[in-house]
Amino acid sequence: MVRLHICMTCKAGLPPEEGVPCVGAQVFAAVSALEIPAGVEVVPVECLSACNAGGVVALSAPGRWSYVYGRMAAQNAAEILVGAAAYERAPDGLVPWRERPVIFRKQSLARIPPMEAKHD
Amino acid sequence: MVRLHICMTCKAGLPPEEGVPCVGAQVFAAVSALEIPAGVEVVPVECLSACNAGGVVALSAPGRWSYVYGRMAAQNAAEILVGAAAYERAPDGLVPWRERPVIFRKQSLARIPPMEAKHD
Repeated sequence: MVRLHICMTCKAGLPPEEGVPCVGAQVFAAVSALEIPAGVEVVPVECLSACNAGGVVALSAPGRWSYVYGRMAAQNAAEILVGAAAYERAPDGLVPWRERPVIFRKQSLARIPPMEAKHD
Repeated sequence: MVRLHICMTCKAGLPPEEGVPCVGAQVFAAVSALEIPAGVEVVPVECLSACNAGGVVALSAPGRWSYVYGRMAAQNAAEILVGAAAYERAPDGLVPWRERPVIFRKQSLARIPPMEAKHD
C-alpha cells in the first residue's frame, strides 16, 4: 500500500476567503470524489511545509523513494491519481519518465531516498 | 541513526564550470570536513529532484517526519549539522521551532509524514 498525502492547509499564497475551502482542501475533495486506484491510500495531512508551492501532495511507501509535488489544483485530481497508480506499480518508487503525468514531471518539489537504500 | 542526505549533483541553477565542484559537492565536502554529530549518518545522493532550489539536503529516519531544505551552501555546513543533531534528538523528527537553525526555518522545501504515522 502506498500513501498519497494531500496537504489540507495549502492556501497557495492566497488570503483565506470565508466559506471557501483552501486549495489543499479542494484538491482533497476532488481526489476523494474519484475512484482511488488499488493499493493507494489517500491521507489528508496538515501542512507539508511547502506553503509557497501549494497545493502540495506527497507519495510515500516503505522501501520506496518519496516524492513531493507542488502547485496542484482540484482540476489535476485525475492526473494525480494516474501518477499515484504508476507509483504504486513501481516497487522502488522510481516511475519511468514517460509514465509520469506531465504535472509530476514539471512540478516536482523534491524527492527523498528510501530509508533502507544503500548509496554509493 | 538518522540520515542527512546531501545532493551531490546540485548546481543551483549555475552552469557547470570545469574543475569546480558543483554546489552540492561543495556542501558535502564542507559537511564532511566537520565533526559529524552522534547518531547522524551523512549520505551523498544523486539528485533530490529540487534542482531549482539547490544545494539541497534531506533528513530522514524510520518513524520520523522527513524534511527537505534548499539553497544550502558550503558556508552553511556547521548550521546544517546543528540542525541534523536537533533532528536526531527528536524521536518523531519534529524539532521545536526555536531549536531549528535559521536556515532550516527559512529554507524548508517540504516535509513528508512518517510511514507509520496515523492521521486524523
